[in-house]
Amino acid sequence: MPHRRSAFFISDRTGITAESLGQTLLTQFDSLEFKRETVPFIDTVEKAESLAARIRERAQHDHHKPLVFTSIVNPEIRRTLKIDGALVIDFFETFIGELETELGQHASLTMGKAHGMVSEEKYDHRIEAVNYSLNHDDGVKLKDLDEADVILVGVSRSGKTPTCLYLALQYGIKAANYPLTPEDLDSTSLPKILQPYRNKLFGLTIDPARLHYIRTERRPESKYASKENCRFEVNEAESMFRQHGVPFISTTHKSIEEIASTIIHKAMLKRNF
Amino acid sequence: MPHRRSAFFISDRTGITAESLGQTLLTQFDSLEFKRETVPFIDTVEKAESLAARIRERAQHDHHKPLVFTSIVNPEIRRTLKIDGALVIDFFETFIGELETELGQHASLTMGKAHGMVSEEKYDHRIEAVNYSLNHDDGVKLKDLDEADVILVGVSRSGKTPTCLYLALQYGIKAANYPLTPEDLDSTSLPKILQPYRNKLFGLTIDPARLHYIRTERRPESKYASKENCRFEVNEAESMFRQHGVPFISTTHKSIEEIASTIIHKAMLKRNF
Repeated sequence: MPHRRSAFFISDRTGITAESLGQTLLTQFDSLEFKRETVPFIDTVEKAESLAARIRERAQHDHHKPLVFTSIVNPEIRRTLKIDGALVIDFFETFIGELETELGQHASLTMGKAHGMVSEEKYDHRIEAVNYSLNHDDGVKLKDLDEADVILVGVSRSGKTPTCLYLALQYGIKAANYPLTPEDLDSTSLPKILQPYRNKLFGLTIDPARLHYIRTERRPESKYASKENCRFEVNEAESMFRQHGVPFISTTHKSIEEIASTIIHKAMLKRNF
Repeated sequence: MPHRRSAFFISDRTGITAESLGQTLLTQFDSLEFKRETVPFIDTVEKAESLAARIRERAQHDHHKPLVFTSIVNPEIRRTLKIDGALVIDFFETFIGELETELGQHASLTMGKAHGMVSEEKYDHRIEAVNYSLNHDDGVKLKDLDEADVILVGVSRSGKTPTCLYLALQYGIKAANYPLTPEDLDSTSLPKILQPYRNKLFGLTIDPARLHYIRTERRPESKYASKENCRFEVNEAESMFRQHGVPFISTTHKSIEEIASTIIHKAMLKRNF
């Protein structure tokens, strides 16, 4: 049996860019299995040399060229990682020249700037949004929905909480959430508390079979988790959304990133940093 | 005054890869200002054509070539976005050929796979971690710390909650957090409840001046927010970490991504997807 191919995602900071890059490319070869490793904070030549030695060893052991995806600003560190016997995809070097020419400027080669090092103001904004979302999770305090950028509405376990937190953490968006209770679903009108905020509402729905599965993990054999009840709640929620012109999406088979991007896109939300 | 240069981050899915890529490159030209726009879900030729028309208009208006960063799998959509009068950085096309040659396979050109479309099992894992972190925020329920992958320890407002949530959402890591109270800080020993979990602990610290600023926003003029008290709490917390060999980092001037990556790296945490 052949060894799996090794893939390294290497960065001078968090590794998020190199990984996002590399993973996107590797998913195009889905019949192959990869031994993946993210190596962040390679910010000195010494660290790079010891990593390069490790990758060379791996190459010998694997009998296949390791794939090395790098996003590194410092030219000397980059050179250290140009490893014979590996396929090096150097994202920074590939594109920076073209940009320098077009912009008529040299790259500043400052490392800290490249990933994530944000201003305090932006950080504060993000934390404020996270605190807001935590305080407005499951409609606990609805008195200041005025402040919300968006209010996610859906039945229990349709994905509201993680989506709100992701919107806050990733985009600094103040997202509140309101769980539709069985009582809310008995009526065709919008829950009273939401009526003043109709144009901030965004619905989440979910495939009833998937909802049944999720709720069963939580409360097995309950009415709450039963197939009939899940089907009923989802149907009622969707008719409510349709009747009141609340945009909505299904969270089934979507990652949290996809749900969040879709909401930002469809509701034309302003990202706050 | 010259118009700002336009930069588009275009993707057939969420836009996260194209954006992370493009932003990393643009931060290298920090004396320039860019008008940035992320355009996700360009998954048909029609959408690409209408976007291309918009970019051409922008080029005319700006008197500068717009920068276009794309991460798009479908070759026809990619071709539509090869816009004369724009600098197109096509991440996918640039690297996929090299990888095909090395791996001896054609790219599968399946779009859904490239970004974020994750398996239900992985989704569940992530949600479970989020729920875990929510239930263990600020030490509310400490009885099942056994399950935690990591326990963040620090004074109030040192950045524990957003970091826990980010670890859960982004990496499926079960992160609990424990706030050091003034009573905890009066003693040199570890809080009793944490003693059995010493090797799961990770400390967060923060510059006292920054802490003073953050706490003042929350409770102006309080003892809690006073410079003296912030300095005292931070000093005591750091001595506690040192004395008990608890690894710790400062969250000052770091983004949540950087704090999370550093903890994963230093504590050698296993990412759960």
